[in-house]
Amino acid sequence: MKNAVKVIPLGGLGSIGKNITVIEYEEEIIVIDCGMGFPDEQMYGVDLVIPDITYLLQNKNKVKGIFFTHGHEDHIGAVPYILKQMNIPLYGTPLTLGIIENKLQEHGLLTKSECHCVEAGDVIALEQIKVEFVRSTHSIAGACCIAVHTPEGIIFHTGDFKVDYTPVDQKGMDLQRIGELGKEGILLLLADSTNVERKGHSPSEVTIGKTLERLFDNVKGRIIVATFASNIHRIQQIINAAVLYGRKVAFSGRSMENITKVASSLGYLNIPEATLIEGEQIKNYSNDQITIVTTGSQGEPMAALARIAFGKHRSIQIEPNDLFIISASPIPGNDKLVSKVINELYKKGAQVIYKDLEEVHVSGHAYKEELKLMHTLTHPQYFMPVHGEYRHLIHHRNLARQMGMPHDHIFILEDGDVLEVNKVTAGVIGRVRAGNILVDGIGIGDVGNIVLRDRKHLAEEGMLIVVAAIDLETYSIMSGPDIITRGFVYAKDSEDLIEEVKAVANKELEMCLAYQMTEWHILKTSIKKVVEQLLYEKTKRRPTILPIIMEV
Amino acid sequence: MKNAVKVIPLGGLGSIGKNITVIEYEEEIIVIDCGMGFPDEQMYGVDLVIPDITYLLQNKNKVKGIFFTHGHEDHIGAVPYILKQMNIPLYGTPLTLGIIENKLQEHGLLTKSECHCVEAGDVIALEQIKVEFVRSTHSIAGACCIAVHTPEGIIFHTGDFKVDYTPVDQKGMDLQRIGELGKEGILLLLADSTNVERKGHSPSEVTIGKTLERLFDNVKGRIIVATFASNIHRIQQIINAAVLYGRKVAFSGRSMENITKVASSLGYLNIPEATLIEGEQIKNYSNDQITIVTTGSQGEPMAALARIAFGKHRSIQIEPNDLFIISASPIPGNDKLVSKVINELYKKGAQVIYKDLEEVHVSGHAYKEELKLMHTLTHPQYFMPVHGEYRHLIHHRNLARQMGMPHDHIFILEDGDVLEVNKVTAGVIGRVRAGNILVDGIGIGDVGNIVLRDRKHLAEEGMLIVVAAIDLETYSIMSGPDIITRGFVYAKDSEDLIEEVKAVANKELEMCLAYQMTEWHILKTSIKKVVEQLLYEKTKRRPTILPIIMEV
Repeated sequence: MKNAVKVIPLGGLGSIGKNITVIEYEEEIIVIDCGMGFPDEQMYGVDLVIPDITYLLQNKNKVKGIFFTHGHEDHIGAVPYILKQMNIPLYGTPLTLGIIENKLQEHGLLTKSECHCVEAGDVIALEQIKVEFVRSTHSIAGACCIAVHTPEGIIFHTGDFKVDYTPVDQKGMDLQRIGELGKEGILLLLADSTNVERKGHSPSEVTIGKTLERLFDNVKGRIIVATFASNIHRIQQIINAAVLYGRKVAFSGRSMENITKVASSLGYLNIPEATLIEGEQIKNYSNDQITIVTTGSQGEPMAALARIAFGKHRSIQIEPNDLFIISASPIPGNDKLVSKVINELYKKGAQVIYKDLEEVHVSGHAYKEELKLMHTLTHPQYFMPVHGEYRHLIHHRNLARQMGMPHDHIFILEDGDVLEVNKVTAGVIGRVRAGNILVDGIGIGDVGNIVLRDRKHLAEEGMLIVVAAIDLETYSIMSGPDIITRGFVYAKDSEDLIEEVKAVANKELEMCLAYQMTEWHILKTSIKKVVEQLLYEKTKRRPTILPIIMEV
Repeated sequence: MKNAVKVIPLGGLGSIGKNITVIEYEEEIIVIDCGMGFPDEQMYGVDLVIPDITYLLQNKNKVKGIFFTHGHEDHIGAVPYILKQMNIPLYGTPLTLGIIENKLQEHGLLTKSECHCVEAGDVIALEQIKVEFVRSTHSIAGACCIAVHTPEGIIFHTGDFKVDYTPVDQKGMDLQRIGELGKEGILLLLADSTNVERKGHSPSEVTIGKTLERLFDNVKGRIIVATFASNIHRIQQIINAAVLYGRKVAFSGRSMENITKVASSLGYLNIPEATLIEGEQIKNYSNDQITIVTTGSQGEPMAALARIAFGKHRSIQIEPNDLFIISASPIPGNDKLVSKVINELYKKGAQVIYKDLEEVHVSGHAYKEELKLMHTLTHPQYFMPVHGEYRHLIHHRNLARQMGMPHDHIFILEDGDVLEVNKVTAGVIGRVRAGNILVDGIGIGDVGNIVLRDRKHLAEEGMLIVVAAIDLETYSIMSGPDIITRGFVYAKDSEDLIEEVKAVANKELEMCLAYQMTEWHILKTSIKKVVEQLLYEKTKRRPTILPIIMEV
């Protein structure tokens, strides 16, 4: 199709996380966000997941920049890994860029990277494309929608958003500009689908401030609040409550310390000088003068909150009358981790307040009525729901249909699908490569399906190794067979079973040698088979069986 | 203490599941429930968890019977494993016993077991103890509270319960009898704590019937409802809705087929003869005449619903206009599994209704106001919260305190604690052995901490084996070193790394041999160390390294 814009999600559709969208017009490509994903429970040992950017590498010369909607990991986390593969200019608001720069620093990439700081309202003019940042509200400061002006029309990407009419920093979403753009004519809307199942309107972030004020009242001990390090407005409200009750504030946890430092220096966070103290100063104050703001609200075993709970924190020990507030919701899959931490805090005698007891968290994603507002303001010609699992995309489509959009103007894509759109028509015209690259340690992409399958099998059943040395001249066993197990049974407690395994392996090996069936493959398969049969019969388990036969 | 009752929870405190409580008076022991627990995410490959019953084995002659409150797995699931260790008479209402007998049959234990069927209201008189079954309401039919009459007073165990004033079978909880017992004087109350965090009163099960009626209206395709096989009242309401709209009902999933068969034959489930059809008859009817009731509401990969979703069911394939209703809440930890199934159903074009969209599930556990009613009716001298994580027990204690119970009359126990109680005093006097026995395949208790640690390590990092054969007479390498990996990297993609490992292992082995350092332990440790160092440096990973050096 001549004169068409291509929109290609390389990640972020049909699952939560790993958000990255390519917008291409003739010789220009811009990228919106570049997030990491989270390994699912089958990805044993995988640290994080990043998008496959083969398509960008193949079109290196076209790529003009990555434009960030906001600074959450699922929108920025893959940047260091991507920049190692190709250098791309980065555009974002000060906080977004500040968080990214922290990351680049850690990866030793900062000096090599080209970072452009923008403010909401700024327009970056490329050749034919112009990229406009439009102020939005979300559970992190400095969030923007992105309007991509192309010769064919405007592609409007909401990023993650909620409509907060009373934001903590009083910098509301620029609904007027969104309306103006809608009036001008939006060709395609890409909008956040995360909370499309929720009825009504999400509560404003400021409601949490009121709850915190009430909870802080009359507390005798220390107050320890766990929340997301990036939720600057939440942290501001915790500080406000601390100031109100004459408490000092200390930060705990690496990302909490890092992000609050960046946010303070950029003016997103306003902490009275006398309020902020360092961790080591805590002991200089009485307990009722202390507030600690910490990471670990998802129960992550290595984060500060869990370390405090389990007595593994280097400086913070639980004391009687400590009040813990977990100001977050468990992300699906983290419920049990969070429960463990809460139970442990109670066991140590602390008080704990969490979302089942009080309204200590609000979502950062738009509910149904907010989404309807977005659709009404933008009134796009075409619509592509983004950010969510498949069911969320379907529900968002249904919402758009209820609002009168024709069925064939809505596109539910999968990662890698190429949507081509211009003034008169739109359609999916093909696919490019897209997928998950798994990161384990410093290895990128070297953990594939076979490795994961092996890990899963090892995890569930353990392994048993049969090792022997044979002499192929005399057809005799020189050593072994010996049995080594890991994760199967504890050998000392199962001596009889191990002896039986040894016996059947020995018998099979001797038989193979007697018949001179010493071909590698046959030897191994035969031994594996008899051992497998024995173990399944005796234990109903199927550990990985590894016969190692050395020829000497 | 003379003339005292001992109450010993062998399981079920501080975690959900594995409920089993021992009540002992002089020469008599009775056991209330005998449930299984569910492996946590660290228990790789473990199928289920059962309680350690060493204490019962040590007091075999005293044990008079297991008395069951109801037929859920976490209250009956360990029975076959326990009966293999000692024979104990079993007492329960017809449905509870029916479900247990199914289990015993599978384990080949039915003919050897002594099962006593009781009705609510029955009293079993032992020597000094009498055990009374009191009708209760819960998310399974035939649930009872158990009142243990001892010479020192009544121990009242609620079992799992909710107060449903309008139960589907119109057999309400026997609140009058509970009040009467309370009036008579209850020494100790043990009460369900699961939902103590929830304010108000749980909705009645009949509210689901109304929702189902509405949802069934005007559906063109088949209706497939997933729920718990044991939730007989839910299933009855699904049948009622089907009958109302002239639909047939087929059951799918082994436990659904088993339990509904038992429940029908015992009169708990009322299915008009013309309504029930077999799975293979589905094809004889048009889609709008079909309802399928299926297992798998927790997204379990092997259950019928997931098999239907992923196209692996032997007879049920998804068709356009199919309406799926997931009439259950995900148990914590199962959210992602359920999400996966829902997304897959949408991808296949089905409609899905689940708890985020409609009120298609109610809990079977009492909320705060129901618990207050129980405390008021029983008005016990002492109180011991049961069934719940630690935080639930604490909240239940707080609720009892708010109702005026003195602090030192409330006992939060851990599994194995021995609470001694009589007319004048109560206190924890010691501990007996209690804990988790892990079941993997048919192995009971042979998977311990070392095995689990190994499985975890293998799961996260995989393994690398260095294998070589050496001749201790000539101090030379006869074969190898060879490298075998599983779950670490895919060797074909990482040939350079594997070659490097081989080289350092070879060098180290040669050095050891040159210096005649051939002591087993030294050889293995040296090789392990150099390989470990190399791998960590190159990959930042620490796989299990297993040097296997054969002497020939």
